[in-house]
Amino acid sequence: MLSFESDYSEGAHEKILQRLIETNMEKLPGYGNDPYCERAKSKIKTACECPEADVFFLVGGTQTNATVIGAVLNSYEGVIAASTGHISMHEAGAIEHTGHKVLEIPQHQGKMQAMDLEDYLRAFWSDDNHEHMVFPGMVYLSHPTEYGTLYTKEELQEISAVCKKYNIPLYLDGARLGYGLMAAQTDVTLPLIAACCDVFYIGGTKVGAFCGEAVVFTKQNTPKHFMTVIKQKGALLAKGRLLGIQFDTLFTDDLYFHISKHAIQMAQLLKKGFEKRKFTFFLDSPTNQQFIILENDMMDRLKEHVAFSFWEKIDENHTVVRFATSWATQQADLDELFDLLDSLPK
Amino acid sequence: MLSFESDYSEGAHEKILQRLIETNMEKLPGYGNDPYCERAKSKIKTACECPEADVFFLVGGTQTNATVIGAVLNSYEGVIAASTGHISMHEAGAIEHTGHKVLEIPQHQGKMQAMDLEDYLRAFWSDDNHEHMVFPGMVYLSHPTEYGTLYTKEELQEISAVCKKYNIPLYLDGARLGYGLMAAQTDVTLPLIAACCDVFYIGGTKVGAFCGEAVVFTKQNTPKHFMTVIKQKGALLAKGRLLGIQFDTLFTDDLYFHISKHAIQMAQLLKKGFEKRKFTFFLDSPTNQQFIILENDMMDRLKEHVAFSFWEKIDENHTVVRFATSWATQQADLDELFDLLDSLPK
Amino acid sequence: MLSFESDYSEGAHEKILQRLIETNMEKLPGYGNDPYCERAKSKIKTACECPEADVFFLVGGTQTNATVIGAVLNSYEGVIAASTGHISMHEAGAIEHTGHKVLEIPQHQGKMQAMDLEDYLRAFWSDDNHEHMVFPGMVYLSHPTEYGTLYTKEELQEISAVCKKYNIPLYLDGARLGYGLMAAQTDVTLPLIAACCDVFYIGGTKVGAFCGEAVVFTKQNTPKHFMTVIKQKGALLAKGRLLGIQFDTLFTDDLYFHISKHAIQMAQLLKKGFEKRKFTFFLDSPTNQQFIILENDMMDRLKEHVAFSFWEKIDENHTVVRFATSWATQQADLDELFDLLDSLPK
Amino acid sequence: MLSFESDYSEGAHEKILQRLIETNMEKLPGYGNDPYCERAKSKIKTACECPEADVFFLVGGTQTNATVIGAVLNSYEGVIAASTGHISMHEAGAIEHTGHKVLEIPQHQGKMQAMDLEDYLRAFWSDDNHEHMVFPGMVYLSHPTEYGTLYTKEELQEISAVCKKYNIPLYLDGARLGYGLMAAQTDVTLPLIAACCDVFYIGGTKVGAFCGEAVVFTKQNTPKHFMTVIKQKGALLAKGRLLGIQFDTLFTDDLYFHISKHAIQMAQLLKKGFEKRKFTFFLDSPTNQQFIILENDMMDRLKEHVAFSFWEKIDENHTVVRFATSWATQQADLDELFDLLDSLPK
Repeated sequence: MLSFESDYSEGAHEKILQRLIETNMEKLPGYGNDPYCERAKSKIKTACECPEADVFFLVGGTQTNATVIGAVLNSYEGVIAASTGHISMHEAGAIEHTGHKVLEIPQHQGKMQAMDLEDYLRAFWSDDNHEHMVFPGMVYLSHPTEYGTLYTKEELQEISAVCKKYNIPLYLDGARLGYGLMAAQTDVTLPLIAACCDVFYIGGTKVGAFCGEAVVFTKQNTPKHFMTVIKQKGALLAKGRLLGIQFDTLFTDDLYFHISKHAIQMAQLLKKGFEKRKFTFFLDSPTNQQFIILENDMMDRLKEHVAFSFWEKIDENHTVVRFATSWATQQADLDELFDLLDSLPK
Repeated sequence: MLSFESDYSEGAHEKILQRLIETNMEKLPGYGNDPYCERAKSKIKTACECPEADVFFLVGGTQTNATVIGAVLNSYEGVIAASTGHISMHEAGAIEHTGHKVLEIPQHQGKMQAMDLEDYLRAFWSDDNHEHMVFPGMVYLSHPTEYGTLYTKEELQEISAVCKKYNIPLYLDGARLGYGLMAAQTDVTLPLIAACCDVFYIGGTKVGAFCGEAVVFTKQNTPKHFMTVIKQKGALLAKGRLLGIQFDTLFTDDLYFHISKHAIQMAQLLKKGFEKRKFTFFLDSPTNQQFIILENDMMDRLKEHVAFSFWEKIDENHTVVRFATSWATQQADLDELFDLLDSLPK
Repeated sequence: MLSFESDYSEGAHEKILQRLIETNMEKLPGYGNDPYCERAKSKIKTACECPEADVFFLVGGTQTNATVIGAVLNSYEGVIAASTGHISMHEAGAIEHTGHKVLEIPQHQGKMQAMDLEDYLRAFWSDDNHEHMVFPGMVYLSHPTEYGTLYTKEELQEISAVCKKYNIPLYLDGARLGYGLMAAQTDVTLPLIAACCDVFYIGGTKVGAFCGEAVVFTKQNTPKHFMTVIKQKGALLAKGRLLGIQFDTLFTDDLYFHISKHAIQMAQLLKKGFEKRKFTFFLDSPTNQQFIILENDMMDRLKEHVAFSFWEKIDENHTVVRFATSWATQQADLDELFDLLDSLPK
Repeated sequence: MLSFESDYSEGAHEKILQRLIETNMEKLPGYGNDPYCERAKSKIKTACECPEADVFFLVGGTQTNATVIGAVLNSYEGVIAASTGHISMHEAGAIEHTGHKVLEIPQHQGKMQAMDLEDYLRAFWSDDNHEHMVFPGMVYLSHPTEYGTLYTKEELQEISAVCKKYNIPLYLDGARLGYGLMAAQTDVTLPLIAACCDVFYIGGTKVGAFCGEAVVFTKQNTPKHFMTVIKQKGALLAKGRLLGIQFDTLFTDDLYFHISKHAIQMAQLLKKGFEKRKFTFFLDSPTNQQFIILENDMMDRLKEHVAFSFWEKIDENHTVVRFATSWATQQADLDELFDLLDSLPK
């Protein structure tokens, strides 16, 4: 069936598959000590223009968030996130499971505002009673956000400045980072992220890999014995090559960026197609996730022919749904979708 | 370089690679809700002769141990293991990280004895002070053990009987299960394991897969909302297909057993080759891991030409090393090894 | 100095002191296995009209909340609380430290509304994605709330009914329970609380004891091996007698209720005194905590002569402060306060 | 009934009671910010000859161990203890509950030997595989041990030297410290302990207080925001005065040492009494706990007239039991015991 349900519906980009085949019978050391991991790390550092970075490969997003946040925070600290942040809502309490509170502040179309962040930090430190409260020990952003929106360069720099002022590390969840970096009018680049953030991850699972996220510590601030922490969290892959080869491929000849750009182009066409047909958008997303408001009747009819994601109810009669493109989306998928939209009674 | 360093040195079995290629562009639901996962579960239940089993796919061994043990134990309980158990020694405290003690009892060539287990349980329950102690809440076995040894059917049944008597679940870590099941004279089968254990896992990572372990709950005893627990532990793969397709392939036409048998045949030849050349074994292993005692000089010379694993020091002049075969080992590897052994001055 | 800073400013009620002296050299079993603990439990069960209750004594409030909530919740569950709940704000993340999220819902003068609770639960269970979210596993109320306000009988019953409908246990934090039960027009009684709640605690520390909170499980629902859980949390007192004797004294001849009533009377006089002098209240509290809005100048002048607690800033020029009475407050304290208020330039 | 069951059978020393009475109605700040806590800290620092020490008061021993160990260790670290250490055996897994493994090494009459410790540390750091193992992050001693035995000055210094060599903090559990310091021929003093250890605690509960343990960080090494950590663990007493007043009293006019000495004298008499009557000792204890081997028949007869503690079975017919003296033991108790022993048929 036609599907825009998610950006993790297919396997891996064909170049990744090909490299897995070519390297398959090489006998390599385990646990990430193979040359492909080394090579991938090196390419990522170059792409980040951050030679002093330290790169680690983990398997999935929730695992990466819990491992990084758990390793950076002290026991008396929590992590500040927008109330719609993935760690706040949709990771089954993985952060709290590591013993830390997610300190929620307001979201604006999925984004945190530097001013809200500063208000929170100022209020905490001026509260006489703060020794009885969870200390803010990290700031978490997702970019793109859970609503497909993007921070601007200025916004990122402002948030980073607040973090520096309060001496609190900034962490960016880049599960869909490629789709953010390749958005049409963004002024945010990988080197800018490396400069603004203390640690972030470059998502592989949703951008062409079978699995894998590349964590980048940018300020010679890797937690001590982080490899053992990864092992302890059950996040250390015996065949680390699986991650190394995938990221090596993604960061060879800018594959990561090319396939992300393709997804964005598909998303822009999808957006125009819905606009042309007078559909309403929940918000204006420049990335690969498009949030459309459907009448429930229309939603039910559509559901029979194309897969998409339920997002949230607006009112009794309307629902927000998500259509996602990816590196794997084809023009033919869009054509089929538009034909379908045209054929359905409104 | 020639290598017998581990059974996770190569990628995946070629049939797995082929299935990944064939299915790559199918649009499938995430998080294990795809038909390949369903099919793989069904085949595993059949192989276990346990239709009421509940099967889950996780990514790696330490992760699986921490997730299963953490989910089954109550907070006041710990898990009993032989002192050489993988969870006791080599998982970086992953079990303790979930809040539970590993209660160590003596090991005999890597194995736990039913009598020691019963002594432990009897002593605990007859101790006036046991409310101040960690309650034994699970028994952990590895099969094959960390020393390549195997339980017999009788031993497994005895341990299982003690567990039943004390109403404590039995868990078997089958990271290398295939190599155990295909050992020459074993009387332990997959259905026997399913009958004796409350939960166990069938290792994929070390038996032909890129990654993946299949957890089997055998007694309609799956912990409540186990899917959410897996998510919370960061162990839920977005592209669950990667695990489903691999296990579906491994359990099609008995591939899992065939490739395991091959590894055993290679191990037997390797063993004979060492025996013939008058090497001494640390213990008699019927599986794919062979533990050989080397003079340190010999070890150093050998190391230059072939990779193997350091295991432990025996005395000032002798060391135990491990040679492992796998599904990927070739006769040519053995020939090269034997030539090497013959060419080295003793 | 004159002080209305808190209800834990003094030691223990003199009758408690006297009983500690009288029993001091008796040789008693440790860890709560002494006859005073037994007697206190029995009296509490009678006062609750809940003969099937199970009573435990812990040392302090945060400890009690973390121990009870941690013991009742499954790992995939969190606890629902009003956003101003003590566990949400002022326990330094003690709940998250046990691995569980505090799921915040709106507060209304410190209270949770049954409707908000039901909305939350309904939304959770109707969310397609709820397997990726923290399951609601308990509801937490404080009574009196952190703002001194009280639930009515009807409100408690409504919340209890929602909990029953969704099969989720209701827990009431009674750190200041005596002051709530003795409030002038409340229709909430100890037996009602025992009927509505699955577990609650009767606060001792703030109501006449040196330390100690009595946890009451009302529905034969004590978590298994709860004594060991208490030990594991470091909450089991070797000299359990210290708690048993105090609660035995508090529940002999209704001492707990008499001294609570005294505190309420003092609070009512304090309230009238402030009202008469045209002070503004932040909200109308029927209990021993009174929240007054002061101009900052006035606050600074007052601070030099009497101790009270900063609560929160209203605006640039105004601050909410708390005056608390307790079992130990004397009429003379009030007289001194009023003289002071009259003597200060407004 | 006559009882030598434990050293926590009575309430508090009468001087403590008296000070609690005298100070009872003083209005004091909560959470340890009162002048009695300050005074007690100051006296303890003086007694330790460690002016730069940082002192905290917690409520009980298991709580103190879990809080200190949990705060000092990094997540990838465990604590080394003798296999009979209190944290290894009798704290219901409180250390593991904080996420850390207790790394057990051999015990010799309850003590750890410097050589065993060094062997362990050397082996860990020379193991190629140590990144997959729990890092040793602290050494735990109890003094007196669980068997009443004592380290000598030389032994403590040796262990301390090993710790320094491997850069690992040394922690001493002094639940019964007074009884150790006042033993007849010990050369270990409080200043020596402060010099050798990075952190230790002076037990109050078993040495004259109702409750309370004084944690001393000796090397300006207090974990950051330790007050908040204490709060988070539920170990922060609202009426901190209860601990401050008790320790202030214990460290006024050397009360702590005088009452400890009395207990030792009583223990020596008890020991002689048993020796004279040809009883056999399990080991030679210089402190307030005496371990006697009884024939089971004798044990059963004795049990009817005097309370003592079961320790462990020796064989089918013999059992080790513990008789404990304390600050509260009277000569008359001993006389009664000896009369009893003389009157019983052997």
